[in-house]
Amino acid sequence: MTPDDIVLAHVLADAAGAAIRPWFRRPFLVETKEDFSPVTIADREAEAAIRALLAEHRPHDGVIGEEYGEDRPDASRVWVLDPIDGTRAFVAGRPLFGTLIALMEDGVPVLGLIDQCIIGDRWVGGTDHPTTLNGQRAHVRSCAGLGAARLGTTGPFLFDAGDIPRVDALRAEVGDSLFGGDCHNYGLVASGHLDLVVESWLKIHDWAALVPVVTGAGGVMTDWAGAPLRKGSDGRVVAAGDARVAEAARAVLA
Amino acid sequence: MTPDDIVLAHVLADAAGAAIRPWFRRPFLVETKEDFSPVTIADREAEAAIRALLAEHRPHDGVIGEEYGEDRPDASRVWVLDPIDGTRAFVAGRPLFGTLIALMEDGVPVLGLIDQCIIGDRWVGGTDHPTTLNGQRAHVRSCAGLGAARLGTTGPFLFDAGDIPRVDALRAEVGDSLFGGDCHNYGLVASGHLDLVVESWLKIHDWAALVPVVTGAGGVMTDWAGAPLRKGSDGRVVAAGDARVAEAARAVLA
Repeated sequence: MTPDDIVLAHVLADAAGAAIRPWFRRPFLVETKEDFSPVTIADREAEAAIRALLAEHRPHDGVIGEEYGEDRPDASRVWVLDPIDGTRAFVAGRPLFGTLIALMEDGVPVLGLIDQCIIGDRWVGGTDHPTTLNGQRAHVRSCAGLGAARLGTTGPFLFDAGDIPRVDALRAEVGDSLFGGDCHNYGLVASGHLDLVVESWLKIHDWAALVPVVTGAGGVMTDWAGAPLRKGSDGRVVAAGDARVAEAARAVLA
Repeated sequence: MTPDDIVLAHVLADAAGAAIRPWFRRPFLVETKEDFSPVTIADREAEAAIRALLAEHRPHDGVIGEEYGEDRPDASRVWVLDPIDGTRAFVAGRPLFGTLIALMEDGVPVLGLIDQCIIGDRWVGGTDHPTTLNGQRAHVRSCAGLGAARLGTTGPFLFDAGDIPRVDALRAEVGDSLFGGDCHNYGLVASGHLDLVVESWLKIHDWAALVPVVTGAGGVMTDWAGAPLRKGSDGRVVAAGDARVAEAARAVLA
């Protein structure tokens, strides 16, 4: 990862935002994918815009995108894209969806960007690049344990049936919970406004950009067993600003 | 209700926003009220700012506010205030909370304003004032039935235990659901981006401003039995853009 990759990530996010904003709160068709998640022309146009720039500026790098699949996924450098994370929110006119852009090197996420193009919240973090929110350093906050922790999760039912009692147990232990938010919640952890996010069923394009943002701000993001997120991870993730909260949450979820 | 009341409502919302914005994503103490909901200095300063203006411009009107209680609640004209609806979202740095300002005349909400002071979404509706979003007419959308409806609700557990199976049944019938959002969801119904919102435990300061916004955009907002929302309502509300969706939802909730 080079400083130029950070510059490029900003250019890619700018292009995605330019593709998305004209569709926000405008009429469009909502299709339903095999996994029952919605997709729109805005998702496709945003990913196409990013991929066109990558083809121009990084022709040898791999690309994995939610909407248009994999190109050279086994390259040592792979860009991982989710043009609109939180399409349900986008479709409802709620400006908490986000564009996710990650760079993975040899399977490790080294650069991540979360962009909310309506509000104008952009978090960027990576190896040798402490996380920023709109250019200002972002820091997680300390939190001694679950009882003081604020938990965010997009939907309480977006878990395997067998996991729901564990998540319910976690909700019972934390100080407070709020729902909705998609990728934006991870930015709020990085900025020290939320303490914990727990989710499941995340695919590589959902989590790859989040890991550098959270860890670059001083936080922890792993799977439910505490292992690093890698291609092939099972999609269960825990992100926390304070390692004590991460550990306590994983103990409840185990 | 006079056109001057609309002008004043904007002035009140401007003052609340000016009180809230300096605290957004800044450090503050979060206190927990008797009903376990959080409250901050921003809630109190925003309501104080509104009440000071009402004392100056409408000294004879009543005021009911979430944080500072009731003054002349039996006056024929009563302003009903929630300085920050969605304090949990505010505390988490999520810009979907809202300032709610309503005018009730003889117990009927005749003017309502929802203001999201970070994004800059302001819905205003009332008798003889079709709902606007930032000055542009807002319209609900048509939706033939629950199967096509997008449902928003702040939290799936913010219901009496006995009501949760009914809400679960409704979620199973609708086309899609999303969580979080607080008062902002009702604005999205008014603007035709969501079809249905179902909630419970709403107090008069939570629902009074929402009714004119939703109905002034062509929608329906009642309690779960279909009765108008009035002082003493039980706090269960259904808001829908299309009356067919409202009726079908009430049938499932009955």
